[in-house]
Amino acid sequence: MKKPWAGRFKESTASSVEEFTESISFDWRLWPYDIEGSIAHTRMLAHQGILKKSEANEIISGLKEIYKEIQEGRFQWKKELEDVHMNIESALIKKIGSLGGKLHTARSRNDQIALDLRLYLRDVTKGIIKDITRFQKKLLSVAEKEASTIMPGYTHLQRAQPVVLGHHILAYIEMLQRDRERYEDALKRIDTMPLGACALAGTTLPTDRTYLARILKFKRVAENSMDAVSDRDFIMEFLSASAIMMTHLSRMAEELILWATEEFSFIELPDAYTTGSSIMPQKKNPDVLELIRGKTGRVYGSLMSLLTTMKALPLAYNRDMQEDKIPLFDTVDTIKAVLSILIEMFPKIRFNRKVMKETSTEGYTLATDVAEYLVMKGVPFRQAHEITGQIVRYAIERGLALEELSLDELKGFSPLIDSDIRDVLNVENAVKRRRSRGATSPAEIKKQIQRFKRIL
Amino acid sequence: MKKPWAGRFKESTASSVEEFTESISFDWRLWPYDIEGSIAHTRMLAHQGILKKSEANEIISGLKEIYKEIQEGRFQWKKELEDVHMNIESALIKKIGSLGGKLHTARSRNDQIALDLRLYLRDVTKGIIKDITRFQKKLLSVAEKEASTIMPGYTHLQRAQPVVLGHHILAYIEMLQRDRERYEDALKRIDTMPLGACALAGTTLPTDRTYLARILKFKRVAENSMDAVSDRDFIMEFLSASAIMMTHLSRMAEELILWATEEFSFIELPDAYTTGSSIMPQKKNPDVLELIRGKTGRVYGSLMSLLTTMKALPLAYNRDMQEDKIPLFDTVDTIKAVLSILIEMFPKIRFNRKVMKETSTEGYTLATDVAEYLVMKGVPFRQAHEITGQIVRYAIERGLALEELSLDELKGFSPLIDSDIRDVLNVENAVKRRRSRGATSPAEIKKQIQRFKRIL
Amino acid sequence: MKKPWAGRFKESTASSVEEFTESISFDWRLWPYDIEGSIAHTRMLAHQGILKKSEANEIISGLKEIYKEIQEGRFQWKKELEDVHMNIESALIKKIGSLGGKLHTARSRNDQIALDLRLYLRDVTKGIIKDITRFQKKLLSVAEKEASTIMPGYTHLQRAQPVVLGHHILAYIEMLQRDRERYEDALKRIDTMPLGACALAGTTLPTDRTYLARILKFKRVAENSMDAVSDRDFIMEFLSASAIMMTHLSRMAEELILWATEEFSFIELPDAYTTGSSIMPQKKNPDVLELIRGKTGRVYGSLMSLLTTMKALPLAYNRDMQEDKIPLFDTVDTIKAVLSILIEMFPKIRFNRKVMKETSTEGYTLATDVAEYLVMKGVPFRQAHEITGQIVRYAIERGLALEELSLDELKGFSPLIDSDIRDVLNVENAVKRRRSRGATSPAEIKKQIQRFKRIL
Amino acid sequence: MKKPWAGRFKESTASSVEEFTESISFDWRLWPYDIEGSIAHTRMLAHQGILKKSEANEIISGLKEIYKEIQEGRFQWKKELEDVHMNIESALIKKIGSLGGKLHTARSRNDQIALDLRLYLRDVTKGIIKDITRFQKKLLSVAEKEASTIMPGYTHLQRAQPVVLGHHILAYIEMLQRDRERYEDALKRIDTMPLGACALAGTTLPTDRTYLARILKFKRVAENSMDAVSDRDFIMEFLSASAIMMTHLSRMAEELILWATEEFSFIELPDAYTTGSSIMPQKKNPDVLELIRGKTGRVYGSLMSLLTTMKALPLAYNRDMQEDKIPLFDTVDTIKAVLSILIEMFPKIRFNRKVMKETSTEGYTLATDVAEYLVMKGVPFRQAHEITGQIVRYAIERGLALEELSLDELKGFSPLIDSDIRDVLNVENAVKRRRSRGATSPAEIKKQIQRFKRIL
Repeated sequence: MKKPWAGRFKESTASSVEEFTESISFDWRLWPYDIEGSIAHTRMLAHQGILKKSEANEIISGLKEIYKEIQEGRFQWKKELEDVHMNIESALIKKIGSLGGKLHTARSRNDQIALDLRLYLRDVTKGIIKDITRFQKKLLSVAEKEASTIMPGYTHLQRAQPVVLGHHILAYIEMLQRDRERYEDALKRIDTMPLGACALAGTTLPTDRTYLARILKFKRVAENSMDAVSDRDFIMEFLSASAIMMTHLSRMAEELILWATEEFSFIELPDAYTTGSSIMPQKKNPDVLELIRGKTGRVYGSLMSLLTTMKALPLAYNRDMQEDKIPLFDTVDTIKAVLSILIEMFPKIRFNRKVMKETSTEGYTLATDVAEYLVMKGVPFRQAHEITGQIVRYAIERGLALEELSLDELKGFSPLIDSDIRDVLNVENAVKRRRSRGATSPAEIKKQIQRFKRIL
Repeated sequence: MKKPWAGRFKESTASSVEEFTESISFDWRLWPYDIEGSIAHTRMLAHQGILKKSEANEIISGLKEIYKEIQEGRFQWKKELEDVHMNIESALIKKIGSLGGKLHTARSRNDQIALDLRLYLRDVTKGIIKDITRFQKKLLSVAEKEASTIMPGYTHLQRAQPVVLGHHILAYIEMLQRDRERYEDALKRIDTMPLGACALAGTTLPTDRTYLARILKFKRVAENSMDAVSDRDFIMEFLSASAIMMTHLSRMAEELILWATEEFSFIELPDAYTTGSSIMPQKKNPDVLELIRGKTGRVYGSLMSLLTTMKALPLAYNRDMQEDKIPLFDTVDTIKAVLSILIEMFPKIRFNRKVMKETSTEGYTLATDVAEYLVMKGVPFRQAHEITGQIVRYAIERGLALEELSLDELKGFSPLIDSDIRDVLNVENAVKRRRSRGATSPAEIKKQIQRFKRIL
Repeated sequence: MKKPWAGRFKESTASSVEEFTESISFDWRLWPYDIEGSIAHTRMLAHQGILKKSEANEIISGLKEIYKEIQEGRFQWKKELEDVHMNIESALIKKIGSLGGKLHTARSRNDQIALDLRLYLRDVTKGIIKDITRFQKKLLSVAEKEASTIMPGYTHLQRAQPVVLGHHILAYIEMLQRDRERYEDALKRIDTMPLGACALAGTTLPTDRTYLARILKFKRVAENSMDAVSDRDFIMEFLSASAIMMTHLSRMAEELILWATEEFSFIELPDAYTTGSSIMPQKKNPDVLELIRGKTGRVYGSLMSLLTTMKALPLAYNRDMQEDKIPLFDTVDTIKAVLSILIEMFPKIRFNRKVMKETSTEGYTLATDVAEYLVMKGVPFRQAHEITGQIVRYAIERGLALEELSLDELKGFSPLIDSDIRDVLNVENAVKRRRSRGATSPAEIKKQIQRFKRIL
Repeated sequence: MKKPWAGRFKESTASSVEEFTESISFDWRLWPYDIEGSIAHTRMLAHQGILKKSEANEIISGLKEIYKEIQEGRFQWKKELEDVHMNIESALIKKIGSLGGKLHTARSRNDQIALDLRLYLRDVTKGIIKDITRFQKKLLSVAEKEASTIMPGYTHLQRAQPVVLGHHILAYIEMLQRDRERYEDALKRIDTMPLGACALAGTTLPTDRTYLARILKFKRVAENSMDAVSDRDFIMEFLSASAIMMTHLSRMAEELILWATEEFSFIELPDAYTTGSSIMPQKKNPDVLELIRGKTGRVYGSLMSLLTTMKALPLAYNRDMQEDKIPLFDTVDTIKAVLSILIEMFPKIRFNRKVMKETSTEGYTLATDVAEYLVMKGVPFRQAHEITGQIVRYAIERGLALEELSLDELKGFSPLIDSDIRDVLNVENAVKRRRSRGATSPAEIKKQIQRFKRIL
């Protein structure tokens, strides 16, 4: 098949080269954006008198027909036409004749692909922002339900202090809030109009890029033509934001996997969201969560992939940049699938409040409260910490909980300890008394829930 | 040496464990922030009546003395005291006695290190933003000087179209502008006050985190104590922004290395910014640029390092997170050194305007202009492209430049070609006529220079 | 559709979960290995009397029919059957009835997938080793043709000393030799038989894994059942070897891209292996090479992806490990495509021997020879280096080549310089005189070519 | 300070450039290898008559003195001398005068650094191989002690089947065995002699590289001078092997962290190998293990760093390659520290055999045994799996263990179940009956222990 750029060539492209360099097998998904961009471009060309009105109308009708054909699955993509742009342009020329050849006036595939990617990613990012918000809302309603469910809080995966489950879930809402912010910040830079940069230097034809930006609803215009076709940091930034969000979701997945073990028994996953074993009849596995955790690697890998590809490329466009698409599309698909399944699954998790509460004071998790009790009685914290450490050691050696020590035993460690220590060694109190801003008391949690109700 | 947390332990820490877990060998650099944080914390404790005014004053004086000792190199860091926090606290206790033990009231190392890191990174990020701006200004003055220097523009490292050197440099200013924006966006999330989250759950003591945030000049307060001590995405985001900027700088370095080859001969690097060879007496190597390009790997690696470390960590603090510091510090040092040397070196590069201009039309770089000339005469672009391709092939076969073809020869390809083609085949005109927004004409470049003069 | 493990479940799997957890959309490509493994497993079960001979025969016939159906495109893969294993097993049961249910005796999908992957990767790796050898042979024949073609050798991309093109190409053959070795070393660990580990603990049934290994032609048996199903380092190692090879190929691609520039003009790529521009009629771009360079990022990303996924997974199988396939398959496809196009394209590159030779002495590349000439006359190398440096500076200031300096001028720098310096300042001699082992003299190159003829 | 390559330069190096390009702050650690290499080089020069015997002796004495000075801390490293090579050479010249300037005859820093790195890494790798072996031995003696300790085996972190602790530990010995093999394979390629490649092209002087390789005890000689100075895959391969080993150690660390939780309570870490909390007096944290897990990121990052740095570098040496050292040295330090602390700590872990055994049958982990029991009675496995699934569901609904079901209840699911089922529902039997090669029966474990006793 004759290439649109064949004029200067004596030999035709080797078929192995066609196979090796084609991108249509993956960039076809940009088709709605490619056509949207071409229609806008045609309108601009007409607006500037580069095309006649009637020519523009004919081109636009042709493009709309192609849109419909693709939408209805009647369009045939061809590898020998390399990419989504050439496939659509060729179809147009076939449909409306040589007039179709006017579409590519004052543009290059270099700025065209930049436009398609930005239209696509603008859409996708807005969708992801909405999905995050939806997920936050689901989490928020769980947090509200569990706003006084006491559980052990962990550091180093060792029980540390009692916390409230709603508080723990709010921590994830906070993380997602930052993730959303990051996508929103990325969106500012995604939402930039590159078309009209042409190959790299702009054009000698009297185009109007400001007009183009307006009809394509872009907030910014890429102000340097060489940069416009070389810039892929809008994708790198999207991938970074995604990698960071996956870190968060991997942490959540890890915790839920732990909580679903027989050992923790904090949650039960509904049958519909677990899978069995081909050999062990009793198994009920948290596969969805494991896959989320596992897919984190995939998103990190995609980020690393694009960073590497872009490293040390001279200006302006280089074909290496075609390798931006696979990591981008794969990340988009991953992120969307992961958010979608979490939105559906999370609210169906059953929490074993009883187990959570019972274990919340095991492991001497009220020791800090004792130390702070002593501080309030005037003992310097370091000394209070030391005294309480000795109490804990004493209790461990006797196999007793702190609550089970007698007042006399406690007084043996410090005369300042009195009967009011009983209030301290009570888990409900322990949680309630953590009233500092952002702390785990139900009162404070309520405030945070209200805050997010306003934000979301 | 007795550990501050030794109360509950029977055995003392193995010295190999001290060696393995210590962080003082690298976190010492946080000392000014650690002391700043401790002073603010003391003031808050006094403000809330948890400490007496006099106690607070004594603690603050002690801390200020330690500050001075460190500043003057009179302070001895000890590995067996693990980290910067314990080193300073121990020194305080040694200095002012058991009162020093009150400093750690209502805080944990978990929120303390988060505070130190944020104070540090807030400072650093602001500094980097300033450095980027300075570098942009330097570039801008070069761009202004070279606002009509014609050179070949490249795609696929093949000469594509003539561009203006100032335009090329403006492309880098654009990239840096986005880098700056990314750091500014990251700063919003860095500038968040975590102290008071304590271990993970807040405290039972009557602290005031809002007050703390105010005196430490934080824009936000971390609103969830578990998140406050678990969150490292402010570092991941900083590393991402840095990785993307290094991509840009690696591209610039690559270009300058190419331009400094005998083959391109576009620039000459001053002797003071090159180095020689231990064996080859004639060599003058662009080592600085190569190292910048090479250090890109280091920053990517640091990003990957932290992402991996944070993957799938359950809440809240885990010791793994100590591994955030090396990649952060190494990236900060790298970024600052790279910007600093570029600020100094870039303005000293000599551009060989003559070579640039001469080569700017070699390789038939005005072919697009011929095609656009035909478009303006009514030929559909695809056909115009085909005709021009044939002209180029004809010229190559005869070893002629486009300018060297006779009008008759040209007319042979299209009767629409006339004597006005001579204006098109003139590189100054070619550049001037690219007047579209963001294109390479000197007029447009001037506008962009003005724009950046306003912004920077 | 009822799951094979549904016995214990009350709810059926959510369809979103089916969608999220399925692997058939990518693991279908393992089908020939899955069937090969199942046939061997069946033979072993019969050999051990766990199946009757007749049962085994019936199962094997069924599997062979399925093999044929898939081969001929008549098999329908179903997402709701999750993976390649269940798709094939279900088809078997449908075909031969409940007897088909005996196939999965004494195995689990955990060891089955490990087996499939190892059979697949053993095949693939052997194929890649062959491809590397073929590529080395192609390079060797080019090296032989260019065994006395002189060109400039570079360090820091600055001309350093004259070398021979054949020598340069031999450097790539060396790199590929190490790559081949690495794949061969990886193969030792890939070629290990995991089947029979079952879920993780082996089986109570009287299987014979040694027999299995023999009929499947494995060199080793996985000697620990928990390790057998948890181990994915055979894939990580394959990805590492691939990442390192891509580093080499990216370096080769970079050089060829440079050499194909107008500035270097060392090579010309055949039209059939370049592509044009949609806008610039004169362009002839080295897209294939750029894509090879770009795909390096993709392979690095895949390595990072799997490393991250496997980090900190407890034993034994976790579903995260399903994420091993995409990075593996993508890397295999990339590596094979890259090698294949290089094997085809490299021998068609035309070298511009004239340009190479002419530029080989530009840039004072014989300066080292002058210094070594002085060393042979007794001057300490450091002093000889200094003297030659001054000669070079003198020549640069006068715009002369070293060869153009008069004997008197040269003597001015050292009285030891005599008329025999003329022999030194001759590029053919310069190359010939580098006779040390592995150096660039044609004589030494011939030896290396002979060596590789023996090896390959 | 005058540079050794200053001859050709008019301006002296900017001090900022000295600062930016220096490597002495990290490459100083190569000094013993640098001196070893220089002595061998001197001996070769003398052997070839390029140096007089007496000259060589004087140089070697000087180098040995410098060796002693460094060893005793009396040597002063200078940044303005760039690197370890120039520091030592300058000291030599200062010590023995201009004769010292003969040392650098017929070598370049390009091949010198390659030599130093290979000598260093050969040593380091051998040391790591020994450390792995030592660790395996420690693990083996624990495995032997726990050769009949029953514990739950996990898949998906859900209890799957009972296994033996010794078997679990043997899985790690297997992983380390492959790690050791990988380092051994890497060693073949590390152990290659690059010296004599000089800058990139070899030398015109009559050197003998074979002699050099012999006295430096290298197994191979780098057979291509351009490759010899460009090759860093010996480091990349070392980093890959390290990254894979860290994956293993991160998995082990993760398991031990889980086992040390109150929830699992499988192990207790000795006080000396845990650390406390600055705020929570009761805490005993597995910091060492967390840091091992966390440092995995660091090693992955270093691998990614070097891969990126080396991507697309043209031959031969480029200054970018100086960035190979930090990731290498950091990984060496990390790997050695991690192995060393594990060797020390692992044998001190106390296993709670009682808890392990008790939990080993919780979660219906003998269900597979029931299914295999049915298989032995002629039920196709799929049907047996289904039946057992129903039994498990029945038992769960009644809150009973499998062992607690009556024979009648069991017969209700299949008439083939008889009183011999009691033997099956016994955990000791369950483990003993897994006799297949590599399975978890104590008998099989004993075989594996014997095997490793032979190997290690």
